[in-house]
Amino acid sequence: MSHADFALDPRLAADSCPVVRLPLCDVRLMNEVRYPWLILVPCRVGLVEIADLPAMEQATLWQEVNRVGAALQATVPCDKLNVGALGNIVRQLHVHVVARRQGDTAWPGPVWGHSPAQPYSAPDLAARCRALAAALNPNAA
Amino acid sequence: MSHADFALDPRLAADSCPVVRLPLCDVRLMNEVRYPWLILVPCRVGLVEIADLPAMEQATLWQEVNRVGAALQATVPCDKLNVGALGNIVRQLHVHVVARRQGDTAWPGPVWGHSPAQPYSAPDLAARCRALAAALNPNAA
Repeated sequence: MSHADFALDPRLAADSCPVVRLPLCDVRLMNEVRYPWLILVPCRVGLVEIADLPAMEQATLWQEVNRVGAALQATVPCDKLNVGALGNIVRQLHVHVVARRQGDTAWPGPVWGHSPAQPYSAPDLAARCRALAAALNPNAA
Repeated sequence: MSHADFALDPRLAADSCPVVRLPLCDVRLMNEVRYPWLILVPCRVGLVEIADLPAMEQATLWQEVNRVGAALQATVPCDKLNVGALGNIVRQLHVHVVARRQGDTAWPGPVWGHSPAQPYSAPDLAARCRALAAALNPNAA
């Protein structure tokens, strides 16, 4: 199958909204208002582990993770980035990048598995996506 | 300060035991018998975020993460690798690589923050460290 056959996992699609497409990954915002939380999904068919990506694309993945982390640090309060690739529930390879603040709901534990997501309001979700897209696409309008 | 000034965080030192030194990272086994769980600690002073490492050393870090993941897959049952860089409690940069099995104590949640560690027996800890060191150092005796 070619890259054109890539389809986002339905659960990831339901839990997040699109921010921007980078060369390798779709970058999506988790609809969880308590933590600014992005996921990167390499648009390749059949990936589960990071090592399933060819080495050159692994390098691109980590560059894009850095870029996403910098965009979060530039747009929201952030005491610590949390980066994780788990995949115990959704096996399609995806990398989480979460901006954590001391004293946030799950602090100092992980956000994964903490409690059901609390969604943004529709305007706040749109505004957060726009701000992050602008930070990730500095040359865009 | 030079690399020679690097000192392992005391909490990481207390929670884990040394397995092998790779070119960039100390690889250590967490003393938690319920999950085969390694951490990689880049032996550099003052790192907190992955982006604090120069780009070339970031590439080395991810190569070493791959190598550690492959060593786990070769030596213990593993349905899914979990890779994470959190640092909410211990700020010194360290990357977790955990071999997860469906139905393990924390499954499908993360191991971080799940419950207090259950230590290995001393012989089991030593045996696990030896097996992982052998898998990570195939040319060693």
